[in-house]
Amino acid sequence: MARIALDAMGGDHAPQATVAGALLAAAELDPSHAIHLVGQAALIERTLDALLRGEYAAFAAHRARLNVVDAPDVIEMAEKPSAAIRGKPNSSMMVGLRMHAEGRCDAFVSAGNTGAQMAASMVLLKLLDGLKRPAIVTLFPTAQQPVVVLDSGANVDCTAVELVQFARLGSVYAHDMLGRQNPAVGLLNIGEEAEKGNAVCKEAHALLAESGLNFVGNVEGRDLPAGRNHQGPVDVVVCDGFVGNVVLKFYEAVAPLMVGLLVKAGLEQERITAALRQLDYSEYGGAPLLGVRGVSIICHGRSSPRALKNAINVAVQAVESRLVDHIGNRLNAAADGAAA
Amino acid sequence: MARIALDAMGGDHAPQATVAGALLAAAELDPSHAIHLVGQAALIERTLDALLRGEYAAFAAHRARLNVVDAPDVIEMAEKPSAAIRGKPNSSMMVGLRMHAEGRCDAFVSAGNTGAQMAASMVLLKLLDGLKRPAIVTLFPTAQQPVVVLDSGANVDCTAVELVQFARLGSVYAHDMLGRQNPAVGLLNIGEEAEKGNAVCKEAHALLAESGLNFVGNVEGRDLPAGRNHQGPVDVVVCDGFVGNVVLKFYEAVAPLMVGLLVKAGLEQERITAALRQLDYSEYGGAPLLGVRGVSIICHGRSSPRALKNAINVAVQAVESRLVDHIGNRLNAAADGAAA
Repeated sequence: MARIALDAMGGDHAPQATVAGALLAAAELDPSHAIHLVGQAALIERTLDALLRGEYAAFAAHRARLNVVDAPDVIEMAEKPSAAIRGKPNSSMMVGLRMHAEGRCDAFVSAGNTGAQMAASMVLLKLLDGLKRPAIVTLFPTAQQPVVVLDSGANVDCTAVELVQFARLGSVYAHDMLGRQNPAVGLLNIGEEAEKGNAVCKEAHALLAESGLNFVGNVEGRDLPAGRNHQGPVDVVVCDGFVGNVVLKFYEAVAPLMVGLLVKAGLEQERITAALRQLDYSEYGGAPLLGVRGVSIICHGRSSPRALKNAINVAVQAVESRLVDHIGNRLNAAADGAAA
Repeated sequence: MARIALDAMGGDHAPQATVAGALLAAAELDPSHAIHLVGQAALIERTLDALLRGEYAAFAAHRARLNVVDAPDVIEMAEKPSAAIRGKPNSSMMVGLRMHAEGRCDAFVSAGNTGAQMAASMVLLKLLDGLKRPAIVTLFPTAQQPVVVLDSGANVDCTAVELVQFARLGSVYAHDMLGRQNPAVGLLNIGEEAEKGNAVCKEAHALLAESGLNFVGNVEGRDLPAGRNHQGPVDVVVCDGFVGNVVLKFYEAVAPLMVGLLVKAGLEQERITAALRQLDYSEYGGAPLLGVRGVSIICHGRSSPRALKNAINVAVQAVESRLVDHIGNRLNAAADGAAA
């Protein structure tokens, strides 16, 4: 049983896309789960009415599953995070995360201002013991199964110790959420050899080798789409959020470029789209912010209803697998090991 | 008139691919240009014989255009650069670059050990005044015209001042080699705003804004395949060699992944290949090492004969456009401006 709060006001297409995503999720999820739509109540109700009169008429039976929670303020996509969370305590972002912090729900999902969601999650949910920073986890589609990449944008100028912490977070995530046994962890770098890379990577390589994790060495840019490095398949790739974010956004933009060229050359768009479905980010739902005491799922601003539905599914799975407890245990075990 | 030395022994498919590439270039280039094949003379001659008896029979008339220069040693792809260039002064890499340094040729092209080529180029050709490090320039295919990206792997842990120097190098390159007037220079970063990014990027943003270059602000990962940022088209993108190398290798690997998925789904490989030709790296030839007093073109280890032929063309163009002189002038002007 999971209670999910969805930021109804967050994202480029809110509240239409968010409310529609909640309807899709309600139709799909077991009735034991609850969905809270957090935002301007009157607007959410009007949006529900409009959707159920139109494209989503078949979902009328699921309206009763959605609980609307009023939050009068909205944090805009371009607002400065720190000012926004201080200045708008009654925003959908802050109200939803406060519900989670106070135990009135089990997870929070938003396609709103990412910086504000990170800052508010750290302020309201707090970091797990021993962590300096949370990390955003993204699943990279590959030729094989998806690879867990973190950090994909929460942090820049990471230290080697922080990269090792990301490796621990990602390893638990790959196990709990993707069912990977003893996940293979790689370090994003510019060559195979241990001595390659920048100063932080060289230090991180040495620390990872002694971390007790299943460290399989460096992963180069070319290994990411393959889902494997020179040693074999990789489940988790750790990197500084700067390079992680650049590569993630690059990846998201390359597929449309290629599809565009193919369509221009007369190939059938439908067949192309079907062939490339495994590269479609929205299949994987949102990106969890790992390291906070709770489940905070970050979605793309331009998320579709289907992407939001998938993000709600990710939230449910994170709650049911007790991901956050497991991460906490893993960090405590590592700290005990270091102290011993 | 340009005299190009080609490292006949460098690359995964040497000397077959290199010798074949030289034949293709000889057939295409104006007879005023000269091509020197540097390497184990007997092996090169045997390879020429075999190619001209087989697949390259139609190129027999061009054999006389190729001058073989003996160099008995070979630097292997996996050798440590510093040890290799010290220990093998008579390798094709060192002999070819020494010819260039001593004025017996005008450019050097290799698909061999990249680290050794960089180190040997710095030792034999020397850096231009005022530069701390050279940079590898790569052309990124985009939806529009290619974008000049540097550094794509020569340096990690770059300072903000070095990024500004890369911007000057890339700007002259875009002008001389691609005909871009007043090239638009962007900074690879994780957001549009000046205050985004890591510490080096923030400092570089401020320095670029006052550099006298046509600085158009930050370029995000998603902007690279588009060839434009929020301000408009971009000609040059500067970045640390760590992120540049990761993104470059990632880009090279993504297209084959997508093509594989499309072919698996039954779409015609030939039509796909034709549609995506503008994304094919080998169309663009090698990657010049900018900042040294000479033309040193770095090619992929797995370069095809056509890629090597294109790299020789890039070398000819760099010589004819007097790229290195223009870069020197630009750096001197910037130094004078700073001193004034």
